[in-house]
Amino acid sequence: VPGENMIDFWFTAGSTYTYLSVMRIDSVESAAGVKFRWRPFDRRALGRNTPYPVGSSKIDYMWLDLKRRAAMYGIPINIPVPYPPKNTALVNQIALAGLEEGWGKDFVIAAYRRWFQFGEETGGDENVATSLREIGQDAQRVLNLVQGEHIQRLWVSETEQARGLGVFGSPTFAVDAELFWGDDHLEDAVSWHKHGRLVSAQD
Amino acid sequence: VPGENMIDFWFTAGSTYTYLSVMRIDSVESAAGVKFRWRPFDRRALGRNTPYPVGSSKIDYMWLDLKRRAAMYGIPINIPVPYPPKNTALVNQIALAGLEEGWGKDFVIAAYRRWFQFGEETGGDENVATSLREIGQDAQRVLNLVQGEHIQRLWVSETEQARGLGVFGSPTFAVDAELFWGDDHLEDAVSWHKHGRLVSAQD
Repeated sequence: VPGENMIDFWFTAGSTYTYLSVMRIDSVESAAGVKFRWRPFDRRALGRNTPYPVGSSKIDYMWLDLKRRAAMYGIPINIPVPYPPKNTALVNQIALAGLEEGWGKDFVIAAYRRWFQFGEETGGDENVATSLREIGQDAQRVLNLVQGEHIQRLWVSETEQARGLGVFGSPTFAVDAELFWGDDHLEDAVSWHKHGRLVSAQD
Repeated sequence: VPGENMIDFWFTAGSTYTYLSVMRIDSVESAAGVKFRWRPFDRRALGRNTPYPVGSSKIDYMWLDLKRRAAMYGIPINIPVPYPPKNTALVNQIALAGLEEGWGKDFVIAAYRRWFQFGEETGGDENVATSLREIGQDAQRVLNLVQGEHIQRLWVSETEQARGLGVFGSPTFAVDAELFWGDDHLEDAVSWHKHGRLVSAQD
């Protein structure tokens, strides 16, 4: 059964906080003995998705919060990054194709690194080309693959599955039907997976 | 110096997640040896505050998340509660008056209990009257006090102070200028207060 003993990691590679999850999920897997299944979806198809206005208190908070949380996890970060990214559908669709072929995670990590460490907007021509080159993939072949019917249909059906589960933001960790929204709830998903309940820091 | 060695607990008593903070902040104080200063503010004056539409994935998630987090903390909860509450300014202004006179926390806890355990909308006539009676306060005196110039001015000046700090949501825990938004980041605020950085669960 696909997904058995796995936590689904629903994400869009255009999400800021998802950077933290992408960078630390492997070490969570090792430490907790669980596996995550990476599942990109079309966040913008699932309702209102207003980026925080530049200069608002909420976006200022987001950058500072990302910075201090990255420091906690020892993840390099160079904020603010170009935001909001314009062509996140492309990054997610490449990820989807790559996850089928076995290089999807490497691509997502490479694209995030270029975005959050080197300031190259994710989904932009330079970021996409360089990220694919870094992981040894031919850009033209991948772009053809992504425009094909199979990936385009999968993109829609995966997004519909996310909608059916009640996913509304990225990252969302799904333990069967139980959803945990936000990188800061990754450990809660692991706790639910192992114990069927949340475990407080005091336990 | 007011606030020295204290964490400011900025809140509106109309916030759902703030229920968890209100119910567990005393035990966090005891366990961590820190003090919180309760500071109600006018959330609606600080920008867009659209309640989640009933029936949306996000509000469904909110109730389930509140329920499982309340279970983790051993806090009684009976969700969903009447939402969004209409007259939260009154509850916050009564809290402000009560915090000056020494019964503000008791009032906030009483009003939240009636809302989240007995389904009485906070700010509604029944909830306000019963909550004040429960804590031994005369409703007519308190309502006169709240309508007076002192509390009305304090309500505005406190809200302006929150705005100046960059507060945009409730609860927000402020360690000097460092903000932590959300009940799920209460422990982060304590960590910052003690260590000047975030400490991960693995540390």
